[in-house]
Amino acid sequence: MHDLKHTTSRRHFLRSAGLGTTAALAGAAGLAPLTTAARPMQNADKKKLGFAIVGLGKFSQEEMMPAFKDCKHAEITALVSGSPDKAQRLAKEYGVDSKNIYNYQNFDSIKDNPAVDIVYVVLPPSMHAEYTIRAAQAGKHVLCEKPMAPTVEECQRMIDVCKKANRKLMIAYRAQFEPFNLDAIERIRKGELGKIQAITSDHGRIVDPKGDKADEWRVVRKLAGGGSLMDVGIYSLNATRYLTGEEPVEVTAQEYSDKSDPRFKEVENNIHFTLRFPSGILATCTSSYDIEQVKRFRVFGNKAWLDLDPATDYYEHEMTIGKKDGQMKPSIKEGNQFAAELDHMAESVMQNKTPKTPGEEGLQDVKIILAIYEAAKKGKPVKVN
Amino acid sequence: MHDLKHTTSRRHFLRSAGLGTTAALAGAAGLAPLTTAARPMQNADKKKLGFAIVGLGKFSQEEMMPAFKDCKHAEITALVSGSPDKAQRLAKEYGVDSKNIYNYQNFDSIKDNPAVDIVYVVLPPSMHAEYTIRAAQAGKHVLCEKPMAPTVEECQRMIDVCKKANRKLMIAYRAQFEPFNLDAIERIRKGELGKIQAITSDHGRIVDPKGDKADEWRVVRKLAGGGSLMDVGIYSLNATRYLTGEEPVEVTAQEYSDKSDPRFKEVENNIHFTLRFPSGILATCTSSYDIEQVKRFRVFGNKAWLDLDPATDYYEHEMTIGKKDGQMKPSIKEGNQFAAELDHMAESVMQNKTPKTPGEEGLQDVKIILAIYEAAKKGKPVKVN
Repeated sequence: MHDLKHTTSRRHFLRSAGLGTTAALAGAAGLAPLTTAARPMQNADKKKLGFAIVGLGKFSQEEMMPAFKDCKHAEITALVSGSPDKAQRLAKEYGVDSKNIYNYQNFDSIKDNPAVDIVYVVLPPSMHAEYTIRAAQAGKHVLCEKPMAPTVEECQRMIDVCKKANRKLMIAYRAQFEPFNLDAIERIRKGELGKIQAITSDHGRIVDPKGDKADEWRVVRKLAGGGSLMDVGIYSLNATRYLTGEEPVEVTAQEYSDKSDPRFKEVENNIHFTLRFPSGILATCTSSYDIEQVKRFRVFGNKAWLDLDPATDYYEHEMTIGKKDGQMKPSIKEGNQFAAELDHMAESVMQNKTPKTPGEEGLQDVKIILAIYEAAKKGKPVKVN
Repeated sequence: MHDLKHTTSRRHFLRSAGLGTTAALAGAAGLAPLTTAARPMQNADKKKLGFAIVGLGKFSQEEMMPAFKDCKHAEITALVSGSPDKAQRLAKEYGVDSKNIYNYQNFDSIKDNPAVDIVYVVLPPSMHAEYTIRAAQAGKHVLCEKPMAPTVEECQRMIDVCKKANRKLMIAYRAQFEPFNLDAIERIRKGELGKIQAITSDHGRIVDPKGDKADEWRVVRKLAGGGSLMDVGIYSLNATRYLTGEEPVEVTAQEYSDKSDPRFKEVENNIHFTLRFPSGILATCTSSYDIEQVKRFRVFGNKAWLDLDPATDYYEHEMTIGKKDGQMKPSIKEGNQFAAELDHMAESVMQNKTPKTPGEEGLQDVKIILAIYEAAKKGKPVKVN
């Protein structure tokens, strides 16, 4: 189910996106010029590739690391953390050799560790570029969390460095490996909904930096890069792209954040945006950091609508299809989207294939996110290239 | 449940809205100058007031007229139609004296019929002003379908003429008399959802002028005044106003209609719009004439969200409330919104009270609808007064 058909515009985008020169970006983020020569893909004969997990926060511990038990081709072989005690505890839990524990200072020595094939960067967005680039320069392939980075320049640099180092770069868009979402895409492509007219998608949650340690960095602009749009609105945005199979040409947006609320002094709370796609489809999305959790979309066709609510949860999904003669809830088997994603990354390396969600996919979302911010600020539509 | 509390801004709006001079509008729609002197309210001692139904189309026959059987204060006493056979058949069915059948030529003679207290205008929007004004000038109170009229000028003229004739004017916003919607408003006002951050509402259906006679006029601009927004998007719009209890200050909008589709040569198909309310709430709505039927809204608060889907159906509604600890579906009794609306109109006349949804309510939606069209056309936000 990973070989979804894309429309011409999307295929064109994936082929042509951002593989330009690195010269213009040399020196960005204070990094040394590229010296790593192209390497052959490694470990093609291993059954499982070794992952180093960089950042052992709540998401890593509670959601992603437990998924490795369901992987066929991926295993945790190293941990990178600023907290030695936490790293030791998790190393023991996951059977990781304690010599494979790194901190942020000695991270680059991971280049000498053959147990590590892939580095998974699970840090706040502002640190994605640095650790992706350091990993690639250490000869490792990279899986990086979304949003890819707060700026287009950093995203481009990440792509360029990995390309030059001949390392795979994949952005962790888990929903694109989730069975209900894949089923929805398939139904749309097969025409079950008829001609798509509109999409709506809403993502939100209560950000609570006092109550939840994982939210501390989310309200700090220099760490998060932005607010609810970067963190949860990106699910709405990415969904409109994989559901339509098109790239938006124009965005409009409105924002509202109560600046007297200390959580929203630096990052936005509510942002609503509409994407116009080449075929005419309008997709309208909402994103919030101050609503009870919602993760849903609905696709409106002229034969039927398809609803996923929740659409992008970790473990629970529900699909409803509304047709002229009534509603139905298709029976779809829940699957471990994290394991599918991790295995896909490993297989991309083993088979020397471009991952389904490469750096260019992450870059495209960041470009659109920045256009949404611009549209909200200027109060007018912004073209997206 | 009809005495809902409004915020200051909404109360202020209802008090101050559009009761200006009629001089500027004299002669509009080719009507004679106002000559009807103020009359006292009539029939205060009747148990039921008599309604003349103007326009006996699908909606009248299938939805609204059958509701009179559940009314305490309203009964059908006259019919107005261009089709004598249909009128005779329905007169027999509803026990209407055949001398109380009118056509569009002799309609004005209804002034001499004491069996008629109220005229209910159920014609295409372009005819609302003419028949409202003729009814008021014939000494009758008026209930008029939404949208009130295609232009602000016509709406204002309807208000002015009814005021000068001392006749009540109410716009038929049935959802404001529907138990699930009233329950939702009450929960919001009581704070059950916490601070409201956002609203989304989607309304759409397949317009089919070849298959459904009731859709023939809907694709003709000079009859309908507009497309999906005027016909179904108005439910989304009106909902955002009664749910927030506020009046929007700014709108943005995007439209897409395939002009090669003969249905959309004159009127719009898809239009998405966002309203910004004074408290900061953003409400994002979609409207379509080419999607399988949808009539829903969700209100997102910082303690809970509240979903009505369907929200504005004739007979079926479902409420879901999502909180931190899970979802619940409150048990609310379905009620006949049409009967409640018709009785409210009759009681407004009997008790000489301003109806809950007076002409000013209809005018306000028309003002916002025209601002939405302008925003979509210009591609920039438009202020709403």
